[in-house]
Amino acid sequence: MGNADYVFPSTNAECARRVAIPPPQPFVKSLKYNLKETFFPDDPLRQFKNQPTSRRFVLGIKYFLPIFDWAPSYTFEFLRSDFIAGITIASLAIPQGISYAKLANLPPILGLYSSFIPPLVYAMMGSSRDLAVGTVAVASLLTASMLGNEVNANENPKLYLHLAFTATFFAGVFQASLGLLRLGFIVDFLSHATIIGFMAGAATVVILQQLKGILGLDHFTHSTDLVSVLRSVFSQTHQSKRKPRFFWVSAMAPLTSVILGSILVYLTHAEKHGVQVIGHLKKGLNPPSFADLVFVSPYLSTAIKTGIITGVIALAEGIAVGRSFAMFKNYHIDGNKEMIAFGTMNIVGSCTSCYLTTGPFSRSAVNFNAGCKTAVSNIVMAVAVMVTLLFLTPLFHYTPLVVLSSIIISAMLGLIDYEAAIHLWTVDKFDFIVCISAYAGVVFCSVEIGLVVAVAISLLRLLLFVARPKTFILGNIPNSMIYRNVEQYTNTSSVPGVLILEIDAPIYFANASYLRERIARWVDEEEDKLKSSGETSLQYVILDMGAVGNIDTSGISMLEEVKKVMDRRELKLVLANPGAEVTKKLNKSKLIEKIGQEWMYLTVGEAVGACNFMLHTGKPDPLKEESEAYNKV
Amino acid sequence: MGNADYVFPSTNAECARRVAIPPPQPFVKSLKYNLKETFFPDDPLRQFKNQPTSRRFVLGIKYFLPIFDWAPSYTFEFLRSDFIAGITIASLAIPQGISYAKLANLPPILGLYSSFIPPLVYAMMGSSRDLAVGTVAVASLLTASMLGNEVNANENPKLYLHLAFTATFFAGVFQASLGLLRLGFIVDFLSHATIIGFMAGAATVVILQQLKGILGLDHFTHSTDLVSVLRSVFSQTHQSKRKPRFFWVSAMAPLTSVILGSILVYLTHAEKHGVQVIGHLKKGLNPPSFADLVFVSPYLSTAIKTGIITGVIALAEGIAVGRSFAMFKNYHIDGNKEMIAFGTMNIVGSCTSCYLTTGPFSRSAVNFNAGCKTAVSNIVMAVAVMVTLLFLTPLFHYTPLVVLSSIIISAMLGLIDYEAAIHLWTVDKFDFIVCISAYAGVVFCSVEIGLVVAVAISLLRLLLFVARPKTFILGNIPNSMIYRNVEQYTNTSSVPGVLILEIDAPIYFANASYLRERIARWVDEEEDKLKSSGETSLQYVILDMGAVGNIDTSGISMLEEVKKVMDRRELKLVLANPGAEVTKKLNKSKLIEKIGQEWMYLTVGEAVGACNFMLHTGKPDPLKEESEAYNKV
Repeated sequence: MGNADYVFPSTNAECARRVAIPPPQPFVKSLKYNLKETFFPDDPLRQFKNQPTSRRFVLGIKYFLPIFDWAPSYTFEFLRSDFIAGITIASLAIPQGISYAKLANLPPILGLYSSFIPPLVYAMMGSSRDLAVGTVAVASLLTASMLGNEVNANENPKLYLHLAFTATFFAGVFQASLGLLRLGFIVDFLSHATIIGFMAGAATVVILQQLKGILGLDHFTHSTDLVSVLRSVFSQTHQSKRKPRFFWVSAMAPLTSVILGSILVYLTHAEKHGVQVIGHLKKGLNPPSFADLVFVSPYLSTAIKTGIITGVIALAEGIAVGRSFAMFKNYHIDGNKEMIAFGTMNIVGSCTSCYLTTGPFSRSAVNFNAGCKTAVSNIVMAVAVMVTLLFLTPLFHYTPLVVLSSIIISAMLGLIDYEAAIHLWTVDKFDFIVCISAYAGVVFCSVEIGLVVAVAISLLRLLLFVARPKTFILGNIPNSMIYRNVEQYTNTSSVPGVLILEIDAPIYFANASYLRERIARWVDEEEDKLKSSGETSLQYVILDMGAVGNIDTSGISMLEEVKKVMDRRELKLVLANPGAEVTKKLNKSKLIEKIGQEWMYLTVGEAVGACNFMLHTGKPDPLKEESEAYNKV
Repeated sequence: MGNADYVFPSTNAECARRVAIPPPQPFVKSLKYNLKETFFPDDPLRQFKNQPTSRRFVLGIKYFLPIFDWAPSYTFEFLRSDFIAGITIASLAIPQGISYAKLANLPPILGLYSSFIPPLVYAMMGSSRDLAVGTVAVASLLTASMLGNEVNANENPKLYLHLAFTATFFAGVFQASLGLLRLGFIVDFLSHATIIGFMAGAATVVILQQLKGILGLDHFTHSTDLVSVLRSVFSQTHQSKRKPRFFWVSAMAPLTSVILGSILVYLTHAEKHGVQVIGHLKKGLNPPSFADLVFVSPYLSTAIKTGIITGVIALAEGIAVGRSFAMFKNYHIDGNKEMIAFGTMNIVGSCTSCYLTTGPFSRSAVNFNAGCKTAVSNIVMAVAVMVTLLFLTPLFHYTPLVVLSSIIISAMLGLIDYEAAIHLWTVDKFDFIVCISAYAGVVFCSVEIGLVVAVAISLLRLLLFVARPKTFILGNIPNSMIYRNVEQYTNTSSVPGVLILEIDAPIYFANASYLRERIARWVDEEEDKLKSSGETSLQYVILDMGAVGNIDTSGISMLEEVKKVMDRRELKLVLANPGAEVTKKLNKSKLIEKIGQEWMYLTVGEAVGACNFMLHTGKPDPLKEESEAYNKV
C-alpha cells in the first residue's frame, strides 16, 4: 500500500451530498412491515388482492387444493408420462416400503399402507409436480430408536405400533402448525452442512446395523439414526452428476432383487434353513387406525417428542426436494403451503395405519427422471400399491430379509457424500466443522445429540459473526474516489492524516464493547505507525457505516463513547454512508447533533475530500458552514 | 422517485475496475487471526513484544498487580485526595454493608467484613482508579432468593452461611476463569436494555419487600431480586444529570440517619417497644472461613448455580462501572484482567468471611465525585472499616432495622430509571421490549426467569437480523454515480431496464431461502410494474454485495440458484462490490466462473455503466471482452 499524494477531486463541493434522514415511520406501520417480512416473505396473498369474493373463494380452494388448479388442463400426454413414472416409483416404493417398515420395527405391511393413502392426499394438496411420497429410512430408524427407548417392539408390539401412529399424528400436527403459523423458516436452521454430516452419520449407523443383520450376528438394535430424510438438500449440488440414461437399472434393481431373492428362497426352501423371510402379509387395504392413537398414556411425551423430531426432519427433506425440482422446472413451491400438505398427509396417514411419510429424494429423482408431469404419478403409484395390497401380498412371503437389508444399504451408501464434505472444506472451513460435528454426534452419541450439536454450532457462528464483526482499513483505489479494503485491494493508497475504517456488521449489544476496543486499537496502531515514520499526524477517523445494517441502544452508546474518546484525543469523527435504520436511530438519540450532520457524508470519497480540503487549506469544508447554518434553521 | 434518462458516465471505460480476489490464506493463519480477534481483541500482549526476558517479567508482574505500576509515582497530593474519598465511601460502605447483609439474610457483621478484605485485594490487582469495592443489593437479594429456596436462613443459619461462602467462592472461580479464558465477552450479552429492565424489576421487588419490613407487616421473604449489580451500565448515559455539588449530602445521608436513628432508639429505649434493632455485633477482624466452604454437600449444585449467576451479574456491574469512569478520565480498562481481579477478590473474600463483592455504581460515583485519584481510596476505606470492626461495632447495637430498610429503599429508587426506558422506546422499540420483558420477568416470576427471557429475546433479535435481512432497491442520486436506498433518498431515479438490490446482512443458511424468495419477489414486482407502465423490460439485476460480510455454503448454493433462475428468465445477474470473504468463497466454489468475473464490478455505478453501455449500444461492455481474454490466459 503506497501513500499517494492526494489529488483533490475537482468536483468536491458539488459532489458532497447530505446524508438523508429517512422520514419517521409510525411504529405500527414499521412493525407491520417487519412482521410481514418475517412471516410472509413470499407474499402468498398477492393473488387475492383486488378480486371479487367469489373469485377469492375459488382462489382459496385452489390455494389449499392445488389439484383444482392443474387438473382442468390435464392432458392425455401428461397421463402417459405420469403413468410410466408412477409404475416406476411403485416398483421402488414396494420393496423400500417393506424394508423401511422393518427398519422402524413396524410390521412390513405398514410400508405398503404408507405408500397408498399419503400419496393420494399429497396429490390433492401438494404443489410439487415431481415429489414421490413415501416412507424414508432416517425417519424410520429414528422412530425405532426414540420409541424403542421406551417400549420394546418385540415384547409389546401393539403398544409400540400405537405409539408409532401417535407419533405420526403429532408429526403431522406439528408440520401443519408450522405451515399455518408461517414458521416454516425454522426448517432453514438445519443448514446444508448440518444435513450433509447428519445424513452421512445416520447412513453409517444404518449400514452398520444392517451389516449385522446380513452377517447374521444378531438381531440388530436400532440404537440411533435418521438418514435419508435429509438426502435432499445435499443432493441438490450433485444433480448434474446423475446419469438419467442408466436410472432404469437402479430404479428397477430393488424390485428385481426382491423377485429373484423370493424365487430363490421359494425354490430352495431356504427359509427352513435359517434364512429369515418376511412371512405372511395380510391381504387388504389400510385398516382404520384412528382408535389406535393413544392420547392418554405414560408414553405420550415420548410420542410427541418423536413426532416433532421426525416431523421436522421429514419436512426438511420434503421441502428441499420439492424446491430443488421446482427450481429445475421453473415453477414455484410455497414452503408453508407444502408444510400444511405434509402435515395433513401425516394426520390422515396416522388414522389409516400409515407411519411417517415425506418426499424422499431418491424416489423423487426416479420420478423426475421417468418423466413425471404432475402429482398424478403419485396417484398411479398409489393405485399400483393398492393392487399389490389387494392381490399380490402372498408373493412377498418368501422374500428374504437379507434382500431388504441390501436394499437399505444400497440406498444408504448414496447418502455418505464425502465429496460434498470435501467441497465444504474447500469453500468454508466452518461449515466443514459443523458437518463433522453432526456426523460425529450421530455416529458416536445419538441422532438427537448430533442434530442439536450441529444446530448449536451453526447458531454460534451467526452469533460470532455479530459478536466479532470484521473491521477493515480502507484505502484509495488509484485515480478514483473509491475506497476499499486494503487487504483485498493491494494497490490502494492511504490518505495522510485520515484513518478510514469499515465496520462489517450491525452494531449490537453483543459487539459494542468489542468494536469500541477495536476502533481504539486501530487508532493506536495508526498513530504508532505514523509516529515511527514521522508522517502527518492523524486528524480524522472516518467510519464507513455502509455495511452496518442496524444499531441498537448499546451500539448508540458505544458510538457516543467513541465520539468522546476521539474528542479527547483531538481527532475528528466522520461517518460515511450510514443506512436508513442507522441514520434514523442516530437522529432519534440526538447523536447526530453531537457528531454534527456536516460530519456525515454519503460516500467515503466525499468524506475524504472534505477532510483533505481542511487539512490542506486549513479552512473548513465550504459545505460545513452551509450545513451548520442549515442546522440552526 | 423519477425515472431519469441515464447519462453515460464519460469515464465508464477507464473507471471500471476489476474486483480483486484476495490472495489465498493458509487455513492455519486465518484460523489464528480469527481466534485472536475472538479472544484477544484488545491485544493485551502488545507491550510484551520485542522485550528482554527480565523486562517481560517486570511487565508481567505489573500486568497482574497494577499497583506496582502506579505506586512508584504516587504523590502526597494523590494521598490527600484519596484519603477524603476513602473516608467518604467508608461512611457509605458501613451502613450499606450492614443493610445489604441483612438483605442477604446473613449476619450484619458480614457487610463490614466484606468492606475490609476485598477492597484491599482489588487495590492490588484492579486497574480502575475509581471503583469503590463493596457488596451490592441485587447480588445480596439474589443470594437470599436462590439459597433460600433450599435452606431456611432462620432455621439453619450455619448451613446457610456456609453455602453463602461457597457460592462466593464459586462466583470468584467463575469470574477469574472467564478472565483467564478470555471469555469476558459473555458479559456483553447482558445488553444495556436487559440491564435497565432487570435492575428496575429487582429494585421494585426489593422496595416491596422493604416496605413490608418498614410497615412491620411480617418478616419479609426475599422471594426474588438482583437489583443494584447492574446499576452501572444504565447509569452511564445519565452521568451528566448528577450534581456533584450536592453529592456530599447524599453521600453522608446514610451514616447520618444511622447515627440519628441509633441515638433516638438509645434515648427512648424504643427497642423494648417493638422497634427491631441490629443488636450485638462481634468486635474484631474477619475470622478465616476457608474451613466453612462446603464442597461435599447435597446443596453443592445450588451453591455453584448461585455463584455463577451472582458472579456474572456482579461482573457486569463492576466491569461497566470501571469502564465508564475509565472512559471519563481517559485511561484504559482491560475487561479480562478486571475479571481476574474480581475473581481473586471473591475467592479471597470467601476464605475470610466475606460474601459477594463487586464495584457498585453508586459508591464508585461517590468515590469519583469525592476526588479519588487511585485505588488507594479503597485502602483508606478498608482501614476505616477495620477501625470500625476493632473498636466501633458496639455503636451499632441500637441502630433500628427500619433505618437500614430506608437506606436500601433510597438506593433502590435510583435504579428504577423510567427515563432510560422512555429513551429506549424513542430510539429502539425492540430494546424497549427486551427491557420490559426483563422487568416483568423479574417482578412477576423470578430474577433468573427475567434474566433468561431478556437474554433470549436479545439473542432472538440477533438471529432475526440474520434470518430476515433487509433488502433494498437502490436508485441513482442525481448527477452522480452513487446509488442509494430509494426509501432513504427520495430524490433518486431508477435506471431503465436495471434492477439494483442491496442485501444488508451476511448470507447464511438461516436466510438463504428467504433471500432467494425475496429476490425473486423483487424481480416479479419490478417486471409487473414495468409491464403495467409499458417501459423498457427488465434486463439486468445488480446485487450490491457491499454489506454482505460473509457467506456460507448454503448462501453459495442460493446464489447459484438465483443465477440459474435469472438465466432462465433471460436476465443478467451482476454483482457489485463483493467483499474479501465473499469474493474468496465465490472463487473457491467456482461460482465466480459461472457468473463471469466480467460481471462483477467494484461499485454499483460501474455495474450500471456497463449495463447501460450494452443496453444502449447493443455492444458488450468493452471491458468484458478484455477480461474474457484475460480469463482465458
